[in-house]
Amino acid sequence: MKAAQFFTARDIRVVDIASPTPNENEALIAIEWCGICGSDLHEYLAGKLLPPYRHTLTLSRPLRCPKKGSPLTMSHEFCGRVINAPPTSGLSNGQAVMVDPRFYCGKCSRCAASHTHDCPSMGLKGFHGGGGGFSEMVAVETRHCYPLPDSVDLSLAALIEPLAVAWHAVTLCGMEDWSSKAVLILGGGPIGIAHTSALRALGCRNIFISEPTSTRAAQSRKIADHVFNPVSENVAELCGELTSGEGVDVVFDCAGVQKGMDAGFDGAPMVVPFLQLLSKEISLKASITYNERAFRETVDAFAAGRFKGLEGMVTSRIHINAIVENGFEELVINKDHHIKIMVTPQRSWLE
Amino acid sequence: MKAAQFFTARDIRVVDIASPTPNENEALIAIEWCGICGSDLHEYLAGKLLPPYRHTLTLSRPLRCPKKGSPLTMSHEFCGRVINAPPTSGLSNGQAVMVDPRFYCGKCSRCAASHTHDCPSMGLKGFHGGGGGFSEMVAVETRHCYPLPDSVDLSLAALIEPLAVAWHAVTLCGMEDWSSKAVLILGGGPIGIAHTSALRALGCRNIFISEPTSTRAAQSRKIADHVFNPVSENVAELCGELTSGEGVDVVFDCAGVQKGMDAGFDGAPMVVPFLQLLSKEISLKASITYNERAFRETVDAFAAGRFKGLEGMVTSRIHINAIVENGFEELVINKDHHIKIMVTPQRSWLE
Repeated sequence: MKAAQFFTARDIRVVDIASPTPNENEALIAIEWCGICGSDLHEYLAGKLLPPYRHTLTLSRPLRCPKKGSPLTMSHEFCGRVINAPPTSGLSNGQAVMVDPRFYCGKCSRCAASHTHDCPSMGLKGFHGGGGGFSEMVAVETRHCYPLPDSVDLSLAALIEPLAVAWHAVTLCGMEDWSSKAVLILGGGPIGIAHTSALRALGCRNIFISEPTSTRAAQSRKIADHVFNPVSENVAELCGELTSGEGVDVVFDCAGVQKGMDAGFDGAPMVVPFLQLLSKEISLKASITYNERAFRETVDAFAAGRFKGLEGMVTSRIHINAIVENGFEELVINKDHHIKIMVTPQRSWLE
Repeated sequence: MKAAQFFTARDIRVVDIASPTPNENEALIAIEWCGICGSDLHEYLAGKLLPPYRHTLTLSRPLRCPKKGSPLTMSHEFCGRVINAPPTSGLSNGQAVMVDPRFYCGKCSRCAASHTHDCPSMGLKGFHGGGGGFSEMVAVETRHCYPLPDSVDLSLAALIEPLAVAWHAVTLCGMEDWSSKAVLILGGGPIGIAHTSALRALGCRNIFISEPTSTRAAQSRKIADHVFNPVSENVAELCGELTSGEGVDVVFDCAGVQKGMDAGFDGAPMVVPFLQLLSKEISLKASITYNERAFRETVDAFAAGRFKGLEGMVTSRIHINAIVENGFEELVINKDHHIKIMVTPQRSWLE
């Protein structure tokens, strides 16, 4: 069969290869459509995304592997129709399916917690072996074949994969109701558009995109409520004006450009280790004081005796008359020795 | 009555002032105990935390105010007993109470969403007027008086305020069950200890503290499961060893020290605009790919027609044979013109 395979940077060839032979858990899928992803393009240009070793699950070795490797069929955004499937799979021949292109071990603590995307062995068809969408056929585990109703347009269905990336990011925000929320999206490229589309599907009615290039700004205007030029306009001010001074509720960085991130924080420099944040899907949360709920729960927990060993937190008790010398100055001189100094205006408590 | 008032940096005086006169919403509270907070100490040393203007709600002006200001009574961590209260308040004379020292407008969108701590007019007794705990009596809105049962020790109850700060931060993590989670706390000072105490009350059984000073490390050992020295030990490695290679689930930065933050990210530099993050209580979340739930929901939303205008996302459709020249090279040359290029191995789809 025909397949577009990655040999090395700037060397992708359409070649004839053997058709895949599905194992007992797999269905054979005839590809109808697949999308070119930004990471496909990165790989085409730089040839650095494929790991230079045998993948733990597929056992595939890319050409860059120091031991003997092979060219790899690309594309992880693909849909098609079932050619044949195991009898117990519930999939029938001709059934349209969207493919979840991931593989993961299914055994580690991340997989057990439904965080399959954080599995240390996570990989993608089209990147780490197991075939890919740029071909006539792919063998796919049946649990990763999502049947589509006849009503859907398969020439658009491959978009489900990038839309799922956006959906996941949007879901992570934990908002119950997007209809009352205002959102700023940094970057009107494919990722920014996919986020807008996911937010619209979830009912969001106030979506602003910040995009400097005129071509992408024009595309963004078709789907967003307002499009700003971060080079010539003050994005923070415009967001404020369009939300009665409230500002937006969520900012999605869909550009990965430092200047855009800085602008999101009123120009304050922001350097975060994106690779670590992304690969571990870390959340960085700020917290200040408390609200009624936290205060009430703390009072209740205290009254119920759930805080243990609090006596150890009080390192000194003093009268208010001595607050400067035995309180503040003591903390200046012996800061590390204290956790909490307690003060009372009632001398009898100290006797 | 006696009160410890802030005049200017390094000038706190215990003076005689008029007793407060409660209004119809307020109870008069006789202070029993109050804690010295780290921010009280900062104010004592630098005199920079009090705003140099009249507070919008209390109308208090600190001495630094260019217009005529007054010294302010300090302390926001305090408890006491009711001296008198409005008849409808449900508070009786002698009732022990913990005080929520905050004030906020109660009318803005943040207050309406129970985010009273994000109210633009948020202030604290002891910092922004309205009296403070370093005195014999304070008038407090009755809704901010939390009755305590007779069983509790008032000489510890003032700790409820810093514990509520920790409780709020811990709650923000959104964990349903702390008993199976491992936590690393950066810094064994009062904030680190309060976080440990809150986590213990919530059932957490695996708490590690990273603390360089020997005095605080000794205090931390009384409450944490393991205490590391970040100067002489590899904290990340030890966390891994103590969690069967899984690593900790949550890191709380209770030190505000850049080196500690960097260590949390394998030494990658991390510069975030803390002031902006804190004052707006911003969360910074990374998101990568998707899990089954996100994929399933996206397929369902697609099949239900909830994604609108997807045709506009497909900017070109090509045959696999032309994938290099009309696909990858086209994206190199005309990147900004494209959102998604769709590829098919089936020539008939393009006719």
